[in-house]
Amino acid sequence: MTKNMNAPSSRGPLDHNVRDQIVEAATEHFGHYGYEKTTVSDLAKSIGFSKAYIYKFFDSKQAIGEVICANRLEMIMAVVNAAIADASSASEKLRRLFRALTEAGSELFFHDRKLYDIAAVAARDKWPSTLKYEERLQKMVGSIITEGRQVGEFERKTPLDEATQAIYLVMRPFVSPVQLQYNLEAAPTAAVLLSSLILRSLAP
Amino acid sequence: MTKNMNAPSSRGPLDHNVRDQIVEAATEHFGHYGYEKTTVSDLAKSIGFSKAYIYKFFDSKQAIGEVICANRLEMIMAVVNAAIADASSASEKLRRLFRALTEAGSELFFHDRKLYDIAAVAARDKWPSTLKYEERLQKMVGSIITEGRQVGEFERKTPLDEATQAIYLVMRPFVSPVQLQYNLEAAPTAAVLLSSLILRSLAP
Repeated sequence: MTKNMNAPSSRGPLDHNVRDQIVEAATEHFGHYGYEKTTVSDLAKSIGFSKAYIYKFFDSKQAIGEVICANRLEMIMAVVNAAIADASSASEKLRRLFRALTEAGSELFFHDRKLYDIAAVAARDKWPSTLKYEERLQKMVGSIITEGRQVGEFERKTPLDEATQAIYLVMRPFVSPVQLQYNLEAAPTAAVLLSSLILRSLAP
Repeated sequence: MTKNMNAPSSRGPLDHNVRDQIVEAATEHFGHYGYEKTTVSDLAKSIGFSKAYIYKFFDSKQAIGEVICANRLEMIMAVVNAAIADASSASEKLRRLFRALTEAGSELFFHDRKLYDIAAVAARDKWPSTLKYEERLQKMVGSIITEGRQVGEFERKTPLDEATQAIYLVMRPFVSPVQLQYNLEAAPTAAVLLSSLILRSLAP
């Protein structure tokens, strides 16, 4: 990593590059020492930047954590989108969505524990990145239901909003990092059993 | 409270009385200072017993916590049983069960926070009292489903075990103290929306 103590604070591509550099180093550092235990000073020292220089790019440690968290959630969304892309029906999409989300969360927990911890802090403290993520997931659920209703696969009596919110509430404990840790054992079975229950609730 | 430094360790009613006395004092002490922060020594000092004397009755701090937890869960079960006793249908029983459980949990959280913390430790560490409680709740769900099936209120295609387990998985995050704390805001709405979703899934 380039030591960059006296880099200019001009805007544009260079700034962008420095931001990326900070995020990259922070991802590694938080991933090793944990988010809550690391201070911006620790981080600055490890990159070889001054603390003041980091503050030119990010208002706070949380602002850096936010970017890391958003990046990771973006990766999960990509995995989820890929998982449901070629599903042959809305029912199958719901099943795959549930499974992909629990798998991605468990993966994060078991293989990237420190980053999982950032995600858990983010979920607990309701960082904008996680709120946006939850919103996107809810929208995804809503559009799968709409799709299923259009082809007669799902019932149409329940208000769409209500059905969407309820289904999301069923999924949430297995999707939200802060809760998934209490449900890891149950998660694979839950993904199957709860998808089936959800589909029974959607039956026309 | 009777100071009882040299009470005999004979079995029978007296022992029973001392056990109760320890549990009562511990409930108060944990309720004030918190379970995790209190040691058996602190507890002994506050009751005026020797630590060794307490160990004649309980193997460990957890053993005392277990009794407190079991007592509290027994109270919740009584509340839940009363709530569903005169419900006019199996559907109404399920709704009331869900509501009573989220209310009892929220009540514990907001009005007895330190005891809530014992329950959370118990749920996290899978104490026998909480496993037994979960088992009883699952059985309760199972018998409500059976009742609804017998009168044609619910579908009969899904294996009873599967339906029971899935419904319990939907309720669990709002019922388990360790998870309820992340769902307190959502709990009243969730009890309504999820009961409806569950009932849609049970429709014949």
